[in-house]
Amino acid sequence: MIINPADHAYPDIYKLLIGSIVPRPIAFVSTLSPDGVRNLAPFSFFSAVCSNPPVVLFSTVVRSDGHQKDTLLNIRATKEFVVNIVSERFAAQMNLCSADVPPEVDEFALSGLTPAPSDLVAPPRVGESLIQMECTLSNIVTFGEGPGSGSTIFGQVVRFHIADDLFHNFRIAPDLLDAIGRMGGPTYARTRDRFEIERPSLRDLRF
Amino acid sequence: MIINPADHAYPDIYKLLIGSIVPRPIAFVSTLSPDGVRNLAPFSFFSAVCSNPPVVLFSTVVRSDGHQKDTLLNIRATKEFVVNIVSERFAAQMNLCSADVPPEVDEFALSGLTPAPSDLVAPPRVGESLIQMECTLSNIVTFGEGPGSGSTIFGQVVRFHIADDLFHNFRIAPDLLDAIGRMGGPTYARTRDRFEIERPSLRDLRF
Repeated sequence: MIINPADHAYPDIYKLLIGSIVPRPIAFVSTLSPDGVRNLAPFSFFSAVCSNPPVVLFSTVVRSDGHQKDTLLNIRATKEFVVNIVSERFAAQMNLCSADVPPEVDEFALSGLTPAPSDLVAPPRVGESLIQMECTLSNIVTFGEGPGSGSTIFGQVVRFHIADDLFHNFRIAPDLLDAIGRMGGPTYARTRDRFEIERPSLRDLRF
Repeated sequence: MIINPADHAYPDIYKLLIGSIVPRPIAFVSTLSPDGVRNLAPFSFFSAVCSNPPVVLFSTVVRSDGHQKDTLLNIRATKEFVVNIVSERFAAQMNLCSADVPPEVDEFALSGLTPAPSDLVAPPRVGESLIQMECTLSNIVTFGEGPGSGSTIFGQVVRFHIADDLFHNFRIAPDLLDAIGRMGGPTYARTRDRFEIERPSLRDLRF
């Protein structure tokens, strides 16, 4: 079937995008407001960009009530954030941080997750997270305005923190990380069911 | 442990990023060169941005030999592309399209995948793909230069094509789509092992 986005309401197109672009990694992002309130929220429109320099991005969407996420407002003001990678063992606590609570609420306190001081930026890391990336803001790109519009936040990773046992010569052990990805609706995918395909060698191809 | 990106070679930081930001959805992107050669290549730095307007993005990285991907050159020239979602059943054919072949090679022919005409853009869709998004270029944002640098390509989705049986009121049936995600190295994750967490209700939270 064919769907012309212009013929449908943006919340339906949103459902379609989150059901189609799967599985999505999760950036669990910690920030500070200008007056020092801690904020923590998960985002699944998250990706790496490149490694020289090391840049990552995530996008925030304006909700139907027209409110911007506190994360975006905090990063605009302070230019810093931490991306924490989510393992299944603290998925329920992460989920609590997706609630649309007022900006004065500290999601570390709300969820019981542990703030750990960062080295180079002011927002704390999530102590339970096995990989944390301290980031400084590079750029924000915005599309549309009002409900359903989006902003992509690009940040340069200035420091990685990695649990020792995960790391083997820059490779990450996937079973120890036990990351989860987002699917459509309230659904998550585990990363335990895996397979490998070796990249093709030019010798083996006929062209 | 702590990793300061500035102290390490960019290929090692790349390994760290692709092992940490998991599982990653795959944009299997079809383009045309200015003289009409079909190109098809998978990218796992892929994300939605927002739904009003519907925008998606993917990033391309400059390889160690300094070559840009044909996909980026084609999109710069023609301003159009199609994102095809990858199901496990044609993963091996997709993988053939990740080979670093010369620009005159048509990866549809190389892989045996079926070109299907698009409605609103010139690049063909992948017939085997169950969800295809016809896109027009919105914007390209570049970070760094030379090997390891990256370009993020933003496109507006102007038409979705979806296999009828997948689609139920804008929700996508994950078992029928059977999408795969990328992990570090040559590893992929399936999306069959899933769980649900309902979003928290404000009533249930103490703050």
